[in-house]
Amino acid sequence: MKIALAQQNYHIGNFEANTRKIIAGIHQAKAAGADLVVFTELSVCGYPPRDFLEFDDFITQSYEAIDRIRQEADTIGVIVGAPARNPAREGKDLFNAAWLLYEKEIKGVAHKTCLPNYDVFDEYRYFEPAFEWKVIPFKGKKIALTICEDVWNLGDNPLYRVCPMDHLIRQHPDVMINISASPFNYDRDEDRKEVVRQNVLKYHLPMYYCNAVGSQTEIVFDGSSLVYDAKGNLIHELRSFEEDFAVVSLPHRVPPLYEELLPGLSVRTGSEDDTTSHSGAATPGAAIAPAVFDKDLQVSKQYDPQRVLEYLTDDRNISQIRKALLMGIRDYFSKMGFGKAIIASSGGIDSAVTLALACEALGKDNVRAILLPSAYSTSHSVSDAEQLSRNLGNPYDIIPIREVYDALIHTLAPVFKDTPFGLAEENLQSRTRGNLVMGLANKFGYIMLNTSNKSELATGYGTLYGDMAGGLSVLGDVYKGQVYALAHDINRDGEIIPVNILHKAPSAELRPGQKDSDSLPDYDTLDKVLYQYIERRQGPAAIAAMGIDKAVVSRILRLVNTSEYKRNQFCPIIRVSCKAFGVGRRVPIVGKYLS
Amino acid sequence: MKIALAQQNYHIGNFEANTRKIIAGIHQAKAAGADLVVFTELSVCGYPPRDFLEFDDFITQSYEAIDRIRQEADTIGVIVGAPARNPAREGKDLFNAAWLLYEKEIKGVAHKTCLPNYDVFDEYRYFEPAFEWKVIPFKGKKIALTICEDVWNLGDNPLYRVCPMDHLIRQHPDVMINISASPFNYDRDEDRKEVVRQNVLKYHLPMYYCNAVGSQTEIVFDGSSLVYDAKGNLIHELRSFEEDFAVVSLPHRVPPLYEELLPGLSVRTGSEDDTTSHSGAATPGAAIAPAVFDKDLQVSKQYDPQRVLEYLTDDRNISQIRKALLMGIRDYFSKMGFGKAIIASSGGIDSAVTLALACEALGKDNVRAILLPSAYSTSHSVSDAEQLSRNLGNPYDIIPIREVYDALIHTLAPVFKDTPFGLAEENLQSRTRGNLVMGLANKFGYIMLNTSNKSELATGYGTLYGDMAGGLSVLGDVYKGQVYALAHDINRDGEIIPVNILHKAPSAELRPGQKDSDSLPDYDTLDKVLYQYIERRQGPAAIAAMGIDKAVVSRILRLVNTSEYKRNQFCPIIRVSCKAFGVGRRVPIVGKYLS
Repeated sequence: MKIALAQQNYHIGNFEANTRKIIAGIHQAKAAGADLVVFTELSVCGYPPRDFLEFDDFITQSYEAIDRIRQEADTIGVIVGAPARNPAREGKDLFNAAWLLYEKEIKGVAHKTCLPNYDVFDEYRYFEPAFEWKVIPFKGKKIALTICEDVWNLGDNPLYRVCPMDHLIRQHPDVMINISASPFNYDRDEDRKEVVRQNVLKYHLPMYYCNAVGSQTEIVFDGSSLVYDAKGNLIHELRSFEEDFAVVSLPHRVPPLYEELLPGLSVRTGSEDDTTSHSGAATPGAAIAPAVFDKDLQVSKQYDPQRVLEYLTDDRNISQIRKALLMGIRDYFSKMGFGKAIIASSGGIDSAVTLALACEALGKDNVRAILLPSAYSTSHSVSDAEQLSRNLGNPYDIIPIREVYDALIHTLAPVFKDTPFGLAEENLQSRTRGNLVMGLANKFGYIMLNTSNKSELATGYGTLYGDMAGGLSVLGDVYKGQVYALAHDINRDGEIIPVNILHKAPSAELRPGQKDSDSLPDYDTLDKVLYQYIERRQGPAAIAAMGIDKAVVSRILRLVNTSEYKRNQFCPIIRVSCKAFGVGRRVPIVGKYLS
Repeated sequence: MKIALAQQNYHIGNFEANTRKIIAGIHQAKAAGADLVVFTELSVCGYPPRDFLEFDDFITQSYEAIDRIRQEADTIGVIVGAPARNPAREGKDLFNAAWLLYEKEIKGVAHKTCLPNYDVFDEYRYFEPAFEWKVIPFKGKKIALTICEDVWNLGDNPLYRVCPMDHLIRQHPDVMINISASPFNYDRDEDRKEVVRQNVLKYHLPMYYCNAVGSQTEIVFDGSSLVYDAKGNLIHELRSFEEDFAVVSLPHRVPPLYEELLPGLSVRTGSEDDTTSHSGAATPGAAIAPAVFDKDLQVSKQYDPQRVLEYLTDDRNISQIRKALLMGIRDYFSKMGFGKAIIASSGGIDSAVTLALACEALGKDNVRAILLPSAYSTSHSVSDAEQLSRNLGNPYDIIPIREVYDALIHTLAPVFKDTPFGLAEENLQSRTRGNLVMGLANKFGYIMLNTSNKSELATGYGTLYGDMAGGLSVLGDVYKGQVYALAHDINRDGEIIPVNILHKAPSAELRPGQKDSDSLPDYDTLDKVLYQYIERRQGPAAIAAMGIDKAVVSRILRLVNTSEYKRNQFCPIIRVSCKAFGVGRRVPIVGKYLS
């Protein structure tokens, strides 16, 4: 049996476009002689549909899309993901379901059992968990069909009481198929492959794992779909961070040795595909290294708490982050129907990296840089920013903010009177820049990309409606040290970001001689503390115990917790870590914890 | 037995202040001769603590607070709410718990069974539901102790499979005590009292229901705690929208007739309080009108879909909304540590109502109005806004935006060239106002209150960083028609909002002769459609079937769904309806549904 995996990028709620894409995938699979083609979790409506699921009209449209797709599933089997109505009065109205369509009929529907409800996930808000499990017969095989998080419970995940495969295995399936929408984050980078392999080793069945690709506002899905044979060998891996398609014959199967897996069950002989011997197969009952997760952090990746900065900036992480950010920018623009970006280019490292990534994602001609010097800008700020745009080849303009700033000060003088220059005047400059860039954006149809990094956002070191303006944050989940590492990665094959930008001390340049270090601890200390607090949820005592001055730790955590009101008004951030600001981190604004 | 209800207003994560307040409540209850004092759900840490619950350090601080409170619970029993650690490996790490403290010991802990996970609630994110139920003995009585949503399941709520009282009643309790954090919304105004009464009628026990009061960023808790006797008579109701305290003797009890309630169980004789006869008691087994909820909308309130505008603006709703908004403003300022507000006063109805409410909440001397006329402002805009502030007695300034706007246009001229006046120029004016008001806010320590209403926010009729700026939205959950009704309510005892403001056509005044009706359907139609779509989650066909032109419906829903990116950057909105924009409404930004 030949099974195709269609790793596609969907648009949430765009049933027309998604259905067209799925049907194209069916035709491609037919042309390749596949018996069955597998799409991803909630492929019909796009994942995550969030509160659109609460509209009955939305569900009706999804059912209508299934009807259309069903007509194409004639001589080929098709597995798609879409919500299914729960006919019972009890429980939530929907299941998160995988549908097997064949001979223009619905041959089987599997419901998701393990519903993630942490970080960016809210599946208990919408879905009822599965309470029955049945293999689905298809062309003489029995398919154990599960959905995403289901494979993350091998029976020992403390978050879930039920392991669906432990039920399905009793019905002697021939193959496991899982449709997923499993997001990327660098903290969890290696876990997924290991989890899929553990499933194979536990159940002695081949696994087709088809994962969503594409970015949905803030959440990046990396694809990287997998096919394993029953021995735990990786047969095929689809591309990361792009659409892909593959047809893989159902691998020769090691008989599942049901008699040992399930004492008392009758032994079932192998299917026609079984031609290999048992030699080399993992022995049932042999110790399988469990994927040990911290159930709260949902991360297993090991790191040395004394070497956080090295961990955050290691080559693999930075390379993956760069790909995720490029996809995040590209998909935000294409799905919103936008073509062109505008960026305030300050001559600093954050705007330089944002600009370089935007040019890479959208094409240099589609990214306009605006240099907005003030009286407090150093001369190199403009020349460095100009050099950057010359290196990138993107259009730029220089628009001094002096006249507008002076008009603001003159207009406010009757009320400001003789109060000294301070934060208000600094913010007026930043907001003038925001107003000028947004004016250009509105006039010419650009989307403003925000350039704030995670270290700044965490500490509230930014001006609302000023440098915090923008439609999408590129670096909002990237710590300052990682921004530098990205810059080095971008410069790998030659200078794109001028070295002067890499070497100067960070400054907002809102008053003469200002440096970030006037207001913030050094970025190395800051990033270390922030990572422990935000990603690893350590408290002040635990962080101080890692060798950081207690007063510094307290000061940083206070900055984080008192700036929640600013982040609450911030644009979506492309998520690359296991804990980004935004939908996955929900903190009270009027809270007083550690502040 | 005398039982005190302490209906208090807590500060999330402020263990020091909350503990102090709880201990003061204990002392007050002792002084009043109470045997037991009852506080509200998660009173120790404040509700909702959201992701603070994911910090072990936060839980440790909560346990330390319990230890302090326990020392005061010597001769008096104390029931407080605080998270409890789940010792099992399985499931979430915490329970949402009610603690009975007495003789300086923990005498019992009850866990919440029914965990709301819809709208603004995320309790499955943090908590494991209860799986065992035990009455707690106290001074010869048995207490059936439950938490908030637990009383909303009388055994027939399809969202919850377990009814904790059905377990507890088998242990022959003498009294029901429920500690709650049940938010206000006008759509659900009457439900709570009815639900509590239904519990009493079903179980034939008196009920002490102690509900949180106070506003937590966007969520308003109205208090209105209740005491019912076993016959279903309301014995006492605590105040709404303010702190309150009451001591109520355990009412004479109708024996629960366990033999009829629970066939086969042994009959238990009445306690010493039982002196009344059975006459007049509701008969066990008699039909009890169930509180019928739409399980998705979580609302039972009836309304006539043909009379939505009348429903939205009826006197009871408007009066309650006004109280909720006043508490929302007051608590945001006091909990954030702010004293003074600043408001852009345009001479329109939205800023007038916002200003009047702010003066009522914070005191007129603490609210500064800024009038920001442009070349396109009509003369009456300034004079009406001045008259409003003279009526209110609050300070105001007139700061023309002309000079700054001209400087912006001049600065942008080399890039704007000879493009015609349009949206960009309109937004420049709005953002200039935002910048000027924020400049004053930063200079003098004001918090900017936003004046946008729900109809505008829904349709995206506002400028990001301009009129959408501000730290807190007062009217963001109030439809335009309700804003007028609030204005009439404010003017009930004499003109505060000048009648001219009530009668002129709404306009943003960003170009000559502009009217809202140039860009939007009339507000009556708009509000009707928006209410059906947002609060009642009707799709386009269902709304059109109510007699509204299909094209108009489509246009409005498209406006709602394409402006999600704007609302995503909006400040917190004081929630008064069953579906406010913000944390309780989670819609994809790059989604394409109905857009």
